[in-house]
Amino acid sequence: MTLTVSPLEGLPEVEPGADLASLVTTCHLVEEGDVLVLAQKVVSKAEGRVVRLDEVEPSDRARELAGADGDARQVEVVLRESVRIVRARESLVIAETRHGFVCASAGVDASNAPEAGTVVLLPLDPDASARGIRARIRELTGRTVAVIISDSFGRPWRQGTTDVAIGVAGVAPLLDLRGERDAAGYELRSTQIAVADELASAAELVMGKTSGIPGAVIRGFASAGDGSARELVMPAERDLFR
Amino acid sequence: MTLTVSPLEGLPEVEPGADLASLVTTCHLVEEGDVLVLAQKVVSKAEGRVVRLDEVEPSDRARELAGADGDARQVEVVLRESVRIVRARESLVIAETRHGFVCASAGVDASNAPEAGTVVLLPLDPDASARGIRARIRELTGRTVAVIISDSFGRPWRQGTTDVAIGVAGVAPLLDLRGERDAAGYELRSTQIAVADELASAAELVMGKTSGIPGAVIRGFASAGDGSARELVMPAERDLFR
Repeated sequence: MTLTVSPLEGLPEVEPGADLASLVTTCHLVEEGDVLVLAQKVVSKAEGRVVRLDEVEPSDRARELAGADGDARQVEVVLRESVRIVRARESLVIAETRHGFVCASAGVDASNAPEAGTVVLLPLDPDASARGIRARIRELTGRTVAVIISDSFGRPWRQGTTDVAIGVAGVAPLLDLRGERDAAGYELRSTQIAVADELASAAELVMGKTSGIPGAVIRGFASAGDGSARELVMPAERDLFR
Repeated sequence: MTLTVSPLEGLPEVEPGADLASLVTTCHLVEEGDVLVLAQKVVSKAEGRVVRLDEVEPSDRARELAGADGDARQVEVVLRESVRIVRARESLVIAETRHGFVCASAGVDASNAPEAGTVVLLPLDPDASARGIRARIRELTGRTVAVIISDSFGRPWRQGTTDVAIGVAGVAPLLDLRGERDAAGYELRSTQIAVADELASAAELVMGKTSGIPGAVIRGFASAGDGSARELVMPAERDLFR
């Protein structure tokens, strides 16, 4: 099985209310079984998940976390998007979002925002976003694809971000090998593989943060099953790093 | 730029002292500029990084960590491969290796080992392994490729493993966007992308832990620069999660 990973080129600037599925299928031929990976930023823009900082009144806690160098209004937005602050140092805040994701600034980001003075939030329900785009592509083309909404997350202990899945539709996010054995009959140690995160990472390799390519199409991946990106969140009782 | 990711099929069982570059180029046509991703397991086997558990005398500390259910001899090997234990719960040990990687069991693993009663260790110097394979491929074929040695690591907060790079040659492991701006001129938040980890993850999608496919060839990635997988290790002073 050879995979191909193709950048989604030619997408216009995405406005609130945009029909993303239509924009994608207009500029790119999707085939049955493809995995469409879309950067969170375009999905959030289409869903109007944008906040104007001049309309935000920072709380005392936001001012304190922002310190001298940070923007207290932006930190206030981060706090509103967070259910828990995991770590904070200088103006860097690692937070748990309402979806359970642990990431920098609870996913709130000013880069690639629609205009200066605005920040983009994560979709309210990225699985629902993925399901909606998937259903609309089926409606427009008659083809069934999998959809992954991706974002760039940092990791403890390792430098640099990798793209991960924050919303999925039409693909099981975890490949479960529990009970499977290697060629010699030995039970496998790594029993669950986060394939949705690996698909998001593969897609990132052809997306440009500076060139504005907001997604990719992966062909040749035998996506099976379905599920929710929340399956990728480590349950609290198994988490050694809370 | 479209990437293709092809599984490395037909590789024979790898014995200590095996000429991996020769095995790979015999069963797969590599082209100038390809990225060859090899699972750590085959590289370690070729380098003889295998320990027979019946020759290991566990220390008291290993017995204590192993508890009733673990194999104290295997935990002893983990301790010998570790410079620091980061977390331990039941028989699960998260450790920092001599290379600085933080992972389960310091990378020591019994699955896909050459025979029952043996465990496989990480290469002593995975960058050197990658450089050696790269040089030998150039010698055999006249072609210059990048080489990544990969392993499956768990992550805090997220379920499932993703493959990451533990050794690299002929590719810069981090894409540094510091100072780069988006289309609107806003400075980027995610300023370093761990492309070597993303390449390893893309390769994993076509490798089978149960079917014994030990690597992949990625074509179409404009790999530039060079570096060490140690650049992917977060420096202690920047690490909020030590």
